[in-house]
Amino acid sequence: MPFRRKDLLGIQDLEIDEIEHILETALSFKEINERAIRKVPTLRGKTVVHLFYEPSTRTRTSFDIAAKRLSADTFSISASTSSLVKGETFLDTLKNLEAMRPDVFVIRHSASGTPHRLARRTSVSIVNAGDGTHEHPTQALLDMLTIRERKGRLDGLTVAIVGDVAHSRVARSNIWGLTRMGCRVVVCGPPTLIPPGVERMGVERAESVEEVVPCADVLMVLRLQRERQGQMLLPSMREYSMRFGVDARKLRKASKELLVLHPGPINRGVELSPDVADGPHSLILEQVTNGVAVRMAVLYLLAMRGEGGGENDP
Amino acid sequence: MPFRRKDLLGIQDLEIDEIEHILETALSFKEINERAIRKVPTLRGKTVVHLFYEPSTRTRTSFDIAAKRLSADTFSISASTSSLVKGETFLDTLKNLEAMRPDVFVIRHSASGTPHRLARRTSVSIVNAGDGTHEHPTQALLDMLTIRERKGRLDGLTVAIVGDVAHSRVARSNIWGLTRMGCRVVVCGPPTLIPPGVERMGVERAESVEEVVPCADVLMVLRLQRERQGQMLLPSMREYSMRFGVDARKLRKASKELLVLHPGPINRGVELSPDVADGPHSLILEQVTNGVAVRMAVLYLLAMRGEGGGENDP
Amino acid sequence: MPFRRKDLLGIQDLEIDEIEHILETALSFKEINERAIRKVPTLRGKTVVHLFYEPSTRTRTSFDIAAKRLSADTFSISASTSSLVKGETFLDTLKNLEAMRPDVFVIRHSASGTPHRLARRTSVSIVNAGDGTHEHPTQALLDMLTIRERKGRLDGLTVAIVGDVAHSRVARSNIWGLTRMGCRVVVCGPPTLIPPGVERMGVERAESVEEVVPCADVLMVLRLQRERQGQMLLPSMREYSMRFGVDARKLRKASKELLVLHPGPINRGVELSPDVADGPHSLILEQVTNGVAVRMAVLYLLAMRGEGGGENDP
Repeated sequence: MPFRRKDLLGIQDLEIDEIEHILETALSFKEINERAIRKVPTLRGKTVVHLFYEPSTRTRTSFDIAAKRLSADTFSISASTSSLVKGETFLDTLKNLEAMRPDVFVIRHSASGTPHRLARRTSVSIVNAGDGTHEHPTQALLDMLTIRERKGRLDGLTVAIVGDVAHSRVARSNIWGLTRMGCRVVVCGPPTLIPPGVERMGVERAESVEEVVPCADVLMVLRLQRERQGQMLLPSMREYSMRFGVDARKLRKASKELLVLHPGPINRGVELSPDVADGPHSLILEQVTNGVAVRMAVLYLLAMRGEGGGENDP
Repeated sequence: MPFRRKDLLGIQDLEIDEIEHILETALSFKEINERAIRKVPTLRGKTVVHLFYEPSTRTRTSFDIAAKRLSADTFSISASTSSLVKGETFLDTLKNLEAMRPDVFVIRHSASGTPHRLARRTSVSIVNAGDGTHEHPTQALLDMLTIRERKGRLDGLTVAIVGDVAHSRVARSNIWGLTRMGCRVVVCGPPTLIPPGVERMGVERAESVEEVVPCADVLMVLRLQRERQGQMLLPSMREYSMRFGVDARKLRKASKELLVLHPGPINRGVELSPDVADGPHSLILEQVTNGVAVRMAVLYLLAMRGEGGGENDP
Repeated sequence: MPFRRKDLLGIQDLEIDEIEHILETALSFKEINERAIRKVPTLRGKTVVHLFYEPSTRTRTSFDIAAKRLSADTFSISASTSSLVKGETFLDTLKNLEAMRPDVFVIRHSASGTPHRLARRTSVSIVNAGDGTHEHPTQALLDMLTIRERKGRLDGLTVAIVGDVAHSRVARSNIWGLTRMGCRVVVCGPPTLIPPGVERMGVERAESVEEVVPCADVLMVLRLQRERQGQMLLPSMREYSMRFGVDARKLRKASKELLVLHPGPINRGVELSPDVADGPHSLILEQVTNGVAVRMAVLYLLAMRGEGGGENDP
């Protein structure tokens, strides 16, 4: 069964063959971004609306580049310019935009579950571009694509996720996706930043970076939100960095083939040292490149659903 | 005589056949927005510049979608990013942009008369997207299109406009347009929010919503600006809502064919109750859909003026 | 030798034939902006990213219009929406955007040298759209194009630059460019706003506007930054205007063929009186028109480098 949904809201409820179908489609689009003329007419006459209610450069730009390379028209609504300042509800904003006949809404919102709630109220396709601490499905998909491209497979790999797992939508989407695809996932971070009962998500816990490094095929380092400290969840940045920051010293027992991933933007010297971020293990910029391809695939699959696309194309 | 003006500044000075020509053109464009590929090359190589000096989502996005579906290139200047912060006059900004060879300026400004004043100083077409409390011509045109589509005509209909008529550019443009097209227009609102001498605009006054409902074919509910209260023009939101807010109870004596319009964004529970906004009388989202078609028509008629377009196309 | 560089960082290191090649290319593009359909497919499938870390309307819009008239896709990142707010370095932002496969970065930044520093770290072409008080090369190029179009040549002309030369990147780029092209350049302004040792740049100094006017072919009036007064570099706006503001009275001894240029936005009545700004000597709006053509040329030469373009095209 290929991907035939109206929306991409999360990884949690995706089947293995749906994930594989998206990754295959992304691979076929990736090549377009390496051409001299990086544009195809696939989504000409389609309309993609970005609704970003949290600040974002890379994700919004990645979606925007993906859409325009497929020849879609894009429009961007941000919280500060929107009718929200006039007291309109988000649902009214969405229903109004829907009446202008868009094909896809790309939504980022600080409240977990917002895209899911809205998806039930509109016939327009919704892509969750990050909702609160819940899911960030295109990030997990681009991470899986990046790992699979290098390792040739996902099944059987050990992926360690290091950092603030409790508040990370990137971690949550990856845990669901990676375990579904057959990876062994180990999480590691300060006890205050590991969700209680995380084992029920099918993952293991480790106490330290040093413990997970020797057995890991992939180290996924999470961004530390500086505001966690104000919430008394962290002693100090310096102590965090010493215990859970990933640097060359902590990677001494790593396999030569270890892959280091980070969703960006990096706090250099906090969760990741510059020598690792820019070093031979790092795939961070490859993740960004794959992000455009994954978003092209997702926009394509959603916008062309019901038009005979999805199975044989592109 | 079809529409052959350089600018669309207001409804007040439009002739009947000009209004009809715009509405007919809009109808012919409306169908494009329902296709799978919602784009035509009509305005390829034309440049539309949005100059919005008041916050706006729906109107700016509606114009932007309209322009891009006609393949025009669009650029957006807002007050906060513009040279205004460097002390330049609006006229200098406009003359500078004019030197970059655009085809249409779409202007929203808080000062009544700004688009008219600028139109005399530039050879570029200007569309008034709302000037102070003066006019909002594309809103009136989309309202007329929406009514005419449902009722088959405008001539002879009774349209009640409810709310803050005094400060509403939507009301002003509609009063001029609807009376010109043969409608009977009745206005209704708190005495402090009805302009003195409004009868000279060719409209009647009513004391209450209950009074106008039984004879109305269309109820046009205006958005209440919350800041009116601070200006001592309103006792309280609650009292306003009780007396002039439109809800199902006040519509008990309405015709089954009554149409309810609102320019948006709605203050739900203030001037309009959710059951009416989302109920069978409401055409609010149809207004939004027609807004894109009307703006396509206006941009087309202005940008193609003098190129043999306007009479036989599209 | 035509223009074959990866970047356009400044005028200082450009050779005469490189400048001439850019100006010739701009002339060939200028005509496109006067057509009914102002768009060519030259840069279809190319990606231009604007990174403006200082407020700007005219320059950003000029680049954006230039890019879109060549059919490039454009994306805009500003300081307020960028990951900078999340603490990421500018270099990390740039490397991330680079991974999305753009062709050109157009960068404006308040710190002199930023585009040069970044250009060494990326394979993407960089256009300096203004860096601190250092250079603004496309402004100098459009000024040279405007002068040459009217005068038929640059060699042998006398150009007077009036105002805050010390803090002006426009002045600096023009001094390097105009002297390289054979102009005699005279600078004139309050002693606090003329850089010490300016003569080493190959220019002369004059004490007053009245002194330079009779011998000048071109008067280039600089914008006065109002904040200079707070820095104790100026007695008062009024005194500045009396001594160095250019008005009709000070131009009484000017040649009838004198050209007055200003990079905009104008402080009317401070450095330039309205009668001169809008009078027969003024080429200010022609500068803006030429700005689009120059930026089309620069984007074209950089984006098509290595694709057989540059010598025979367009």
